[in-house]
Amino acid sequence: MTPQRVTLITLGVADLERSKAFYGAMGWRPAREMPGEVVFYQINGMALGFFGLASLARDQGRPDAKLGTGATTLAQNFTTKTEVDAAYALALRSGATALKAPEKVFWGGYSGYYADPDGHVWEVAHNPFWELNADGSLTLPAHAD
Amino acid sequence: MTPQRVTLITLGVADLERSKAFYGAMGWRPAREMPGEVVFYQINGMALGFFGLASLARDQGRPDAKLGTGATTLAQNFTTKTEVDAAYALALRSGATALKAPEKVFWGGYSGYYADPDGHVWEVAHNPFWELNADGSLTLPAHAD
Repeated sequence: MTPQRVTLITLGVADLERSKAFYGAMGWRPAREMPGEVVFYQINGMALGFFGLASLARDQGRPDAKLGTGATTLAQNFTTKTEVDAAYALALRSGATALKAPEKVFWGGYSGYYADPDGHVWEVAHNPFWELNADGSLTLPAHAD
Repeated sequence: MTPQRVTLITLGVADLERSKAFYGAMGWRPAREMPGEVVFYQINGMALGFFGLASLARDQGRPDAKLGTGATTLAQNFTTKTEVDAAYALALRSGATALKAPEKVFWGGYSGYYADPDGHVWEVAHNPFWELNADGSLTLPAHAD
């Protein structure tokens, strides 16, 4: 049995310095770095890293693969709609591409999407049914039976 | 400033039941589900969800987008190489596509890659420089200065 665990999210990018500048403009600070090779950020419960697209394809054992984005999204949940709007606006000011401005959505929450400079898709959301832990992590509520 | 936080990883998939069967064969158990719509698993510090590809594209505000995979990878770190081999073998038995069998890699660790039935890329790795917390989460070691 394989544990329900992720220890590292890696985003393949065209230009590490551009990625550092984009996430840095949103306030992110790297925890570890091999300049020109890889940059790691500490997030809740795991690391998030940036790695060159060609290096990532080689590492995956398929150096000629054209790696794609969009089918994986990373969501940041916030405790208020105001915070969602602020995070979305900050991302656009930092150079993100707008996909969908935050709006009320069918499941009862409030959500928007943007893409980072490499097309990696981020959701910013408020879900009134999911309360965040004090450290910003998320424990799914138990089934309502 | 936007917190260094991810609360939900969403993987867009062609067939929710196929995804449930694949991850279920590896031992994963859903925490919440809206049958035919979305399935959520609890992982360390956040949720991981599966959502239809067309629904995800619509949700992103670009219903006609062809969403891609591969430029985002999710890694599971293990404390031994034996566990890496076992997780890789279990994934293949569960229907994963082999990308790279686990092998020693240049950064001093041991790593392999497989793709799930929708092409989402998972890495299984042992990194002797990254010690896992007791709960399987990862706190990056401090800079060695």
